[in-house]
Amino acid sequence: MENFTFYAPTYFVFGKEQEKETGKYVKRFGGTKVLIHYGGGSVIRSGLLERVKQSLDKENIAYVELGGAQPNPRDGLVYQGIDLCRAENVDFILAVGGGSAIDSAKAIAAGAKYDGDFWDFYSGKTVEKDMALPIGTVLTIAAAGSEGSPDSVITKEDGMYKRGASGEGMRPVFSILNPELTQTLPPYHTAAGITDIMAHLLERYFTNTKNVEAIDRIIEGHLLAMINEAPKVIANPNDYEARANIMWTGMMAHNNSCGVGRQQDWASHDIEHELSAEYDCIHGAGLAVVFPNWMRYTYKHNVMRFAQLATRVWGCQMDFENPERTALEGIARYRRFLTSIGMPETLAELGGREEDIEKMAHRAAYGNGRAGTIGGFVPLGEKEIAEIYRMML
Amino acid sequence: MENFTFYAPTYFVFGKEQEKETGKYVKRFGGTKVLIHYGGGSVIRSGLLERVKQSLDKENIAYVELGGAQPNPRDGLVYQGIDLCRAENVDFILAVGGGSAIDSAKAIAAGAKYDGDFWDFYSGKTVEKDMALPIGTVLTIAAAGSEGSPDSVITKEDGMYKRGASGEGMRPVFSILNPELTQTLPPYHTAAGITDIMAHLLERYFTNTKNVEAIDRIIEGHLLAMINEAPKVIANPNDYEARANIMWTGMMAHNNSCGVGRQQDWASHDIEHELSAEYDCIHGAGLAVVFPNWMRYTYKHNVMRFAQLATRVWGCQMDFENPERTALEGIARYRRFLTSIGMPETLAELGGREEDIEKMAHRAAYGNGRAGTIGGFVPLGEKEIAEIYRMML
Repeated sequence: MENFTFYAPTYFVFGKEQEKETGKYVKRFGGTKVLIHYGGGSVIRSGLLERVKQSLDKENIAYVELGGAQPNPRDGLVYQGIDLCRAENVDFILAVGGGSAIDSAKAIAAGAKYDGDFWDFYSGKTVEKDMALPIGTVLTIAAAGSEGSPDSVITKEDGMYKRGASGEGMRPVFSILNPELTQTLPPYHTAAGITDIMAHLLERYFTNTKNVEAIDRIIEGHLLAMINEAPKVIANPNDYEARANIMWTGMMAHNNSCGVGRQQDWASHDIEHELSAEYDCIHGAGLAVVFPNWMRYTYKHNVMRFAQLATRVWGCQMDFENPERTALEGIARYRRFLTSIGMPETLAELGGREEDIEKMAHRAAYGNGRAGTIGGFVPLGEKEIAEIYRMML
Repeated sequence: MENFTFYAPTYFVFGKEQEKETGKYVKRFGGTKVLIHYGGGSVIRSGLLERVKQSLDKENIAYVELGGAQPNPRDGLVYQGIDLCRAENVDFILAVGGGSAIDSAKAIAAGAKYDGDFWDFYSGKTVEKDMALPIGTVLTIAAAGSEGSPDSVITKEDGMYKRGASGEGMRPVFSILNPELTQTLPPYHTAAGITDIMAHLLERYFTNTKNVEAIDRIIEGHLLAMINEAPKVIANPNDYEARANIMWTGMMAHNNSCGVGRQQDWASHDIEHELSAEYDCIHGAGLAVVFPNWMRYTYKHNVMRFAQLATRVWGCQMDFENPERTALEGIARYRRFLTSIGMPETLAELGGREEDIEKMAHRAAYGNGRAGTIGGFVPLGEKEIAEIYRMML
């Protein structure tokens, strides 16, 4: 195990009807003038936005609003939000929505207190250091884990570059998680969220660090829980209990409690980011196509780690004479699980085209200030990334 | 799953030599005049106390010292600590040691800022509400989980009552976990620590709340990791990696990440507290005697939950025609595991006597402001508690 620090001070409020307490928590964490940031019309149609506003009114907290955060949130709206915060002397950002609204809110929060261009945080020019406006969230989608993480991903419209930033000030001070709010999510989006959650776990699972049993076992536990709960919620979208188990796992999968003390991989996320930047597909759906192929490409690097995952999580029998067969059977079961919940298997299903592969591989390898390789478990260059894209055809 | 809040804002610094950074973290969290609180001579003999002082000197942080915290820490020393804090205008408490030194430090921290008797927090007369002096810890024993929890247990010398308190201000602001510091711990104490960690997990596992798969799977994962790592460290006390896995699991087992959204039990802890109060035995060793007997007494309340534990954690085959046999086999394997790492099985091994049972059962049922029953999973009265004590003979 490697040395590490771990600090996850978000205050979580979990359960039915808890969004009605939003105003109370904004007040507790010092907000007096709030920017409510959200995505499309669903939070309006469902009445959620109204309930949140009522809770702010109850505490006499003033607010302005900015909607329009879209999946793969764009820099244009972030600039609008920053201007609005400055014009209105906003001192607290409240994101109401899924990972996109929250990631966009984090960019606004960091940019509002920064003299330069907020994109500096995403281009790698500078790092956010606990100076952003405080952020609270009311989560509506179990997927990104942004509600408990210091991370944010934004797409630059000029060139459609999708890039990430991380900073302690971008970690929400509170997050309200009401599983009821996820019950109206369409099955495809629900499944994509589940896929994203599992990918956050797997990116941390594939490591070259030895003697990491304690965290391996938690990751495996989270994955087993998702495999148990996912079919319930696909069969019955109103299954509150399954939604609750998935929603809380989504937070734990990405607050780095599963990543401490070990090298991590993250190549699959980088490879997927080019897909959702290029084709505007849902991140989780992109990961469903990328991750099994990344596994097929890399498993020989450590067959026994793949066999461990296959036996402990996917219920495969260990073939002690041929561990490779077990490793591959685990990957096959993962793939079958993803298709069973309605996720795609091929680039074509995402709207992808073979002729874009070279371009995407180049951007994955060299974008975001990278020096030509991605991935911790198995470093991949432009050529290897292109081969993985081709496996998705 | 039940509604819950979760907030665990301790800053953890984990790994080799990290105690040398103590001064830096005291400074970061605002300490200018520190009380260093520790237990016996081992932290002096090992040179740890000296290294911690040097790190404070390096940051020009003044300090006073109070040693003498003993296993099952006493109220007498807490009063001394409170007086010292007031006389010296201490603004930060630094515990160097295991759960006893940390629990004692928490009592001092809460009492120093409270006008009344600190025992009010432990007798149930009042609740600590985020007003204690800030606490940092340098942990030397993986067991109590006090380094990441808001809990503290103190023994009142007058009558030897052992009572607990909990309050957000009693949660450490930072905790330094260096597994190297645990390598000198004798095997019996190491095993008792492991037993305590597993008990913290099991107290949360036994619940009547339904649909708690996500947390069940984490608890099971932590237990599996402990079962894997414990024999390594018993065979080789210098196994840093096993110590590291155990130390971090010890924190996670008790910061309530494994307890959210569900009813918990805690009767075994209450039953044990009377043993260590009466016989001054090590808490973990007491739990090794109590917990399997509590299980044998209560398993019929929910045979399938015990069978789940037996199959998922103890590797038992599920007997689908007779789940009770599986449940009992799991309890038997738990017991064999405990004896394999050197833990006791009987009251006599703890120095206990049959003639004390009625008295202890009465105190367990009615102490600490209780109304005559303990335990969430299966409520137990004085008579039932006495029966469990008798099973330990």
